[in-house]
Amino acid sequence: MRMYDIIAKKRDGQPLTQEEIDFFIEGYTNGSIPDYQVSALAMAVFFQDMNEEERAAITMAMVHSGDTIDLSDINGIKVDKHSTGGVGDTTTLVLAPLVASVGVPVAKMSGRGLGHTGGTIDKLESVPGFHVEISSEEFVNLVNQNQIAVIGQTGNLTPADKKLYGLRDVTATVNSIPLIASSIMSKKIASGADAIVLDVKTGAGAFMKSKEEAEELAKAMVSIGNNVGRQTMAVISDMSQPLGLAIGNGLEVQEAIDTLKGQGPEDLTELSLTLGSQMVVLGGKANTLEEARSMLEDNMKNGKAIQKLKDFLSAQGGDASVVDHPERLPVASQTFDLEAKEAGYIHEIVADEIGHAAMMLGAGRETKESEIDLSVGLVLNKKVGDYVEKGESILTIHANTSEVELVKEKLYNNITIKSGNIDKPQLVYQIISE
Amino acid sequence: MRMYDIIAKKRDGQPLTQEEIDFFIEGYTNGSIPDYQVSALAMAVFFQDMNEEERAAITMAMVHSGDTIDLSDINGIKVDKHSTGGVGDTTTLVLAPLVASVGVPVAKMSGRGLGHTGGTIDKLESVPGFHVEISSEEFVNLVNQNQIAVIGQTGNLTPADKKLYGLRDVTATVNSIPLIASSIMSKKIASGADAIVLDVKTGAGAFMKSKEEAEELAKAMVSIGNNVGRQTMAVISDMSQPLGLAIGNGLEVQEAIDTLKGQGPEDLTELSLTLGSQMVVLGGKANTLEEARSMLEDNMKNGKAIQKLKDFLSAQGGDASVVDHPERLPVASQTFDLEAKEAGYIHEIVADEIGHAAMMLGAGRETKESEIDLSVGLVLNKKVGDYVEKGESILTIHANTSEVELVKEKLYNNITIKSGNIDKPQLVYQIISE
Repeated sequence: MRMYDIIAKKRDGQPLTQEEIDFFIEGYTNGSIPDYQVSALAMAVFFQDMNEEERAAITMAMVHSGDTIDLSDINGIKVDKHSTGGVGDTTTLVLAPLVASVGVPVAKMSGRGLGHTGGTIDKLESVPGFHVEISSEEFVNLVNQNQIAVIGQTGNLTPADKKLYGLRDVTATVNSIPLIASSIMSKKIASGADAIVLDVKTGAGAFMKSKEEAEELAKAMVSIGNNVGRQTMAVISDMSQPLGLAIGNGLEVQEAIDTLKGQGPEDLTELSLTLGSQMVVLGGKANTLEEARSMLEDNMKNGKAIQKLKDFLSAQGGDASVVDHPERLPVASQTFDLEAKEAGYIHEIVADEIGHAAMMLGAGRETKESEIDLSVGLVLNKKVGDYVEKGESILTIHANTSEVELVKEKLYNNITIKSGNIDKPQLVYQIISE
Repeated sequence: MRMYDIIAKKRDGQPLTQEEIDFFIEGYTNGSIPDYQVSALAMAVFFQDMNEEERAAITMAMVHSGDTIDLSDINGIKVDKHSTGGVGDTTTLVLAPLVASVGVPVAKMSGRGLGHTGGTIDKLESVPGFHVEISSEEFVNLVNQNQIAVIGQTGNLTPADKKLYGLRDVTATVNSIPLIASSIMSKKIASGADAIVLDVKTGAGAFMKSKEEAEELAKAMVSIGNNVGRQTMAVISDMSQPLGLAIGNGLEVQEAIDTLKGQGPEDLTELSLTLGSQMVVLGGKANTLEEARSMLEDNMKNGKAIQKLKDFLSAQGGDASVVDHPERLPVASQTFDLEAKEAGYIHEIVADEIGHAAMMLGAGRETKESEIDLSVGLVLNKKVGDYVEKGESILTIHANTSEVELVKEKLYNNITIKSGNIDKPQLVYQIISE
């Protein structure tokens, strides 16, 4: 078998066999196939696509390129959730304790990552004492005991995907549905998920700018999951404006606490219930999405959801009293209001630019070496569709500096107020449950 | 300027600017742009093509990536001829003295190369004493004096093309019209051609298997030439069967001698006159192709063409007496006839396979290190459309071994005889003169 022939075959629009896909993923991982052949193949895939069998094959080839996490000692169906990423997306912090509270085991491996705010682990570290440096045994025991635990990334998972993604990133071949879908799915499967729920974002703050692209990606991933024996569902949700109100680390933990108490922002609550219902159904704890949703709503009201968060934080060394004493979370030294320069309806809050403003305050990492400030960020007081008086606060800036002029300028430039009213954007565009 | 953006732009079907093309060719030549980005771009070009401006720009960028040959000390318009390559293609050996005999300066830089037979230099070295190791000054003087000289390749011509071709060769991106056309044209222009005549072959023995592809390539090269100020014409000619009768080095020199005397095979004579007429017009020695053809035909008849060959061979140390004493050319020790197993009409003589049979005898190089046997090869006694009796010789094998069974088997497998008659294939499919 020669890589040249594989490139030529794909270039000419023919599907690759599983053997050919295994050959190139294995060869690329071990270095026997060079970057320049793989980038040519990736560009050919960009133009010629991959069919369902090829997508499943490349996903599993990447899974098998490195370590895989064995969660078989954990009782029950392990359901993982993945979001394609957005601004102010607090759903993981809400979902994990919420679905654990109805008995779905949440065995989450999480990272720090680059972005507008930190990753899930950074956010959780806003809770004094909380840590993810636990052994694999402790991790398994905690999930069996509490239905929930979070561990930092361990092992050499999907090295083929890391290498391939790095190459695609510099050869303008990232934006290919089969390659994006297989990349995401391979990581979830290697992390031990039995079933997967996907939150595919669309809009200015998302990688997929259009609903059509988001739908194509969501369907591709659901299809891969189901073709490789991992039941998968997906939601396509709006990321034209930030989700919820808070953008920051400690600020998002506070928002998650509110939401688990049933007092969170409407959109974050709704999306958490939508995704959570899918997780509960896939986890085998309810037969229908309606039944699952009702269970989750009950636990928000009856205190079981917030209690699960407390148990989870305590079990990993965290001070669970933050749940009732928000002042024990990191607090920024100063706050500033962004006052509306005119009265009117909010027409646009450009998600990615608002996220960038939060990063300018120190909420996120630009490079791996950046230090995150867990206390800073933004809290929206208005969202798209809301009316605002002249001089009224659109949002509050939480900062550890008084020099926020540049941040304010960026915010003003990316929030549009017009006199005519406008509907609130639809939050969930589509639910793909099979 | 970033290579990433250039790849993405081409991927999305937008034309690249001259600055962008210069940037990537220069960066690739000096090593600042890596192979894996260039192979991704080449694959994007495969799918998205290049427009006329881009094709001209990449051609000149490759010309400027290395040395260029300055032929300005040679009087007259220097017309170069390029063939896309075929089997038994003796046209260069005929054309050079033929057009020189009417006053068109032929300043030919030539190579050895890999293939079924040697390159033009190898063939000429069949003439005892002939050599191409002459200085640039001697080369210029000889052309001014005799209108013809051949020199081996000198200087670091089009290093960008060499590097890019090497990469395309292993990434399945050779077969792209703008990249093929710019590769060929850049080499001709860097070699100092003022005007260019192209012989684009089509059929089994050619790189371009179909007439449509050949026409596309020919038009692309003519357009590049004319857009960068080098008048260019092209012929699309048949290479389904070998051209002429001889396939070999010394054997082709003999065939060229016959043709210059007006006694050559019909197809080789016709193609030489067709291409030669274009060279004469571009060289400014005739106003029309008809006028030029008549001049060339005259010189075949009146002995001026063969005299020019003698002068040329003598001037570079060769024994010109071979022209009248063919036995002084290298002669193989044995000959074998390939006898027809049945009577009928020759329907097919698969050019590339017949060429491969000649290489098996030692006529060509498989690797750079291979030694060429200048005496061996094949001489066709029949061509497509001819009738052959059972037992009659289809072709004669010239070998320095008696073990020719495998060669015979290959030949039999690639020559088809059928009872029904068939027209001789058209030789010149199209003449592109502007």
